[in-house]
Amino acid sequence: MPIVIDHINAAAMSGSHGTPYGTVTDAAIVIDDEHIAWLGPRAELPSSYQNIAPVDGQGAWALPGLIDCHTHIVYGGMRAGEFEQRLQGVSYEEIARRGGGIRSTVAMTRAASLEELVDSATARLVELRREGVTLVEIKSGYGLNLETERKQLIAAGQAAERAGVDVRRSFLGAHTIPPEYDGNADDYIDLVCDGMLPALAREGLIDAVDAFCETIGFTPAQTRRVFETARAHDLPVKLHADQLTNGGGAALAAEFDALSADHVEFCDEAGARAMAAHGTAAVLLPGAYYFLGETQKPPIDLFRRHKVSMAVSTDSNPGSSPTTSLLLMLSMACTFFRLTPEEALTGITAAAQALGATPDHGTLTPGALANIAFFNITQPAELAYHIGHNPCVGRCYRGRLSLDGWPS
Amino acid sequence: MPIVIDHINAAAMSGSHGTPYGTVTDAAIVIDDEHIAWLGPRAELPSSYQNIAPVDGQGAWALPGLIDCHTHIVYGGMRAGEFEQRLQGVSYEEIARRGGGIRSTVAMTRAASLEELVDSATARLVELRREGVTLVEIKSGYGLNLETERKQLIAAGQAAERAGVDVRRSFLGAHTIPPEYDGNADDYIDLVCDGMLPALAREGLIDAVDAFCETIGFTPAQTRRVFETARAHDLPVKLHADQLTNGGGAALAAEFDALSADHVEFCDEAGARAMAAHGTAAVLLPGAYYFLGETQKPPIDLFRRHKVSMAVSTDSNPGSSPTTSLLLMLSMACTFFRLTPEEALTGITAAAQALGATPDHGTLTPGALANIAFFNITQPAELAYHIGHNPCVGRCYRGRLSLDGWPS
Repeated sequence: MPIVIDHINAAAMSGSHGTPYGTVTDAAIVIDDEHIAWLGPRAELPSSYQNIAPVDGQGAWALPGLIDCHTHIVYGGMRAGEFEQRLQGVSYEEIARRGGGIRSTVAMTRAASLEELVDSATARLVELRREGVTLVEIKSGYGLNLETERKQLIAAGQAAERAGVDVRRSFLGAHTIPPEYDGNADDYIDLVCDGMLPALAREGLIDAVDAFCETIGFTPAQTRRVFETARAHDLPVKLHADQLTNGGGAALAAEFDALSADHVEFCDEAGARAMAAHGTAAVLLPGAYYFLGETQKPPIDLFRRHKVSMAVSTDSNPGSSPTTSLLLMLSMACTFFRLTPEEALTGITAAAQALGATPDHGTLTPGALANIAFFNITQPAELAYHIGHNPCVGRCYRGRLSLDGWPS
Repeated sequence: MPIVIDHINAAAMSGSHGTPYGTVTDAAIVIDDEHIAWLGPRAELPSSYQNIAPVDGQGAWALPGLIDCHTHIVYGGMRAGEFEQRLQGVSYEEIARRGGGIRSTVAMTRAASLEELVDSATARLVELRREGVTLVEIKSGYGLNLETERKQLIAAGQAAERAGVDVRRSFLGAHTIPPEYDGNADDYIDLVCDGMLPALAREGLIDAVDAFCETIGFTPAQTRRVFETARAHDLPVKLHADQLTNGGGAALAAEFDALSADHVEFCDEAGARAMAAHGTAAVLLPGAYYFLGETQKPPIDLFRRHKVSMAVSTDSNPGSSPTTSLLLMLSMACTFFRLTPEEALTGITAAAQALGATPDHGTLTPGALANIAFFNITQPAELAYHIGHNPCVGRCYRGRLSLDGWPS
C-alpha cells in the first residue's frame, strides 16, 4: 500500500515545476515501496491515491534527502590536541616531528580494529542522518596499505548500513605517501595501481577512484597512472584538485571524464571549461576553507559562467574539516563563497551527479528513490540562513518514514 | 541528601587546581541542594560523602554551565528572505527600501504577542541549553517604545524559566532609532532616559543597561546620557562598541565601569588599557563577524597584553548572527580570532564577569551554583575543535541533574 503525505511544501530541486527550488506549495507526495510514485499539488492528487489515509505533514518542507559527496569519515583517533598546539603557536613542522598531522591519523587508523572504525564512523554518520542526509560518499586513504585500505572500505559499508544511509565508496590509496615509502612516491603508486586497486576492485569494495593531486600530494603524472588503472577496471574517477595551487588538476580530472573535481579553489578558466565539457562537477568544501584559514575562494563566477554543476560537501575528516554538519556547510558556502541558497541547495542534485547516483538520488521525482528530508522551516533559504541549527524533523529512507522530530 | 558524581574529569575553569583548564582527572563532585559542595580527586572524597551511592559519570567531562552573555534572542519574525536577497545581489539600500533590515524585526516584534515571543525564544533557548548553557543574557531593543521593550523583557524572563536557564536582562532601548523618531535621535534618547529606562527599572525588569555606540547607532554623547541615567538608577552598563569603526566606545564603556564592551573589533590600545583598569570584559562575537563577512578582527594580542578578560558569545539575533550554537562560537573564536581553546573556554568565567554573575556562575567551585555541563569528550580542546557538533550529554541546573544523553 503506498504512503501519501500531504500538508507539505516540497522543494523538489528539479526543473519540472518551473519554480525556484522546484517548489510545490500545499503539496502531496506518494511513496510506493522504495520509490517516489507521485508529487504535486495536493488538489491534484490522482484519484487512485485518494482512498489512502494520508500522513499529515503539518506544513513541513520536503526536500530530496541530502547528499554528502565528499567525506573521509572512517578513521582512527582524533586530532583536537594538534588543533590546540597549533593555536598555542607550535609550528606544523614541529607537530609533524612529534608524529602529528595526517600520519598520526594513518597510524591510528592502522591500529584501530574494524569494529572500532565502524563504531566511530557510525556515530558520525548518525549526525549527518539527523540533518536529513540519506547518501554519503566515504573515502579510504588513511590506510595506505592493502590491509588497512580494505578495512576502511569494509567499515564504510558496515557503518552506512548501521546508520541507515546509502553509501558510495571511493578508493583513495593515492592520498599521501605512507612513511614506509618516504622518498619513493613512484614505488608507492606502483603498489596503488598494481596491488591495492585491482585487489579491492575485485572484492567489489570500490565505486570510484580518487587521488590527491597537489604539490604536497601526487604529481599529475602519478595521478594519471592511477586514473588509467581505474579506467582499466571500468571505475569512474574523481580528484582532490587545485586546493592549494593551480596544478591543472581540474583539467586533468575532466580529461578522464571525472565525476567531480573537489576543492578547486585555484581552478582557472581552462579548468572550468574542461569540467563543463566533460560533465565534471565542482565539489566545494567550505569546512576545510574555514578550518585551514584559507583565503583563496573557488571561482564561483567561472563555474556559473561555464555552467559547471556545484555541489557542497563536509569533507568530514579529523585534520582539516572536523565536521559532521552538512547544513553548516550550506551556510558557509553562502557566507564564504557567496552562493545563493538556491545554488547551495541545488548542490544536492549536483552531489548526486558527483557520485554517479542520478536519477535515483538528488531530486524529488517520480521514479527516484524515496529518500526525503523533512524540515520545520518557512522557506528553503532558511536551511542556509541559520548557523549551526538543525530544523530536520523527519526523514524517509528508501520508503521507510521516521518522523522523530515531527511536531505533534 | 547531597548528590555525588564520580568517574568524571572536571575542567573547573578556576585557578585553584594549578592545571590547564583547572583540570581534575578522575574527579568527584558533590552537589548539595543548589550548590557545589566539593570538587576534587575521587580518591580524596571526604568521608562524610563516602556513604552516598554515587552517580557514575562514565568518564564524562564536567565544566561550569556555559554562559551566553550577549544575545538578542527575543524577537518576532525571521530574516532568511533578506539573507537570500542579499546573495542574489539586492543592495542593502534596496532591502531597507522594501522594509527589510532591523526595522523589519522591530515591526515584527511590535506585532508579535507576548506568547509568540515567549514560544519562539524558548525554542532558541532550548537549543542553547542542549549544549550545556545554564545562564543567558537577553537584551531588549527591538521594541523601541515602552510597551514593546517591556514585552520583550517580560518574554525574556518567561522564556528563560520555560527553558530552564538563568537569565540576566539588559535594556537596550538605545539600539537604533525607531521610524517614528527619524532624524530626531536626541528626542528618542530623551524617551529612553526619561521614559523607558526609569519605568522598566522600577518594574524590576532590568539587570543592566546596554547601548549601540557607532556611526550608524548613537553618538558617544547620546550614549553617555544613557549611561548617566543608568548610574542614577544604580544599574550597571555594557556597550556595543567599536564594531565597525574606532569610536572610542571601549574607553567610554570603561569610564562608566561597564561590565563589558562587546564586539570591539576596532578597539585600540587606549581602549584595551581602559578596559583592563576598570574590569570591563571584552565580549567577542564571531558569529556576527562571520555572517557579516567582516575582516577586522578584535585585537586579541592587545587584550592578552593588558589582561582584559575575554568572553565569547553568540550575539544570537535575526539580522547579523542567526545562531543558537555557543559551541560553534568557540570554534569560530579559535579559528577566526586565534584564541587558544583554553582562552575560549576561560570565556565562560569571563562571561560570568560580564554579567556581574561571579562567583555564583562561571567556575566549578565550592559555593558556586551547581550549574554544570557534562560532555562526552576526551579533552576540553575538543569543544572548540569540532565544527557544529554537540557532545553535551547532561546538565546540572541549580542542583537538578538531567542526563538525557548519558551513555548507558
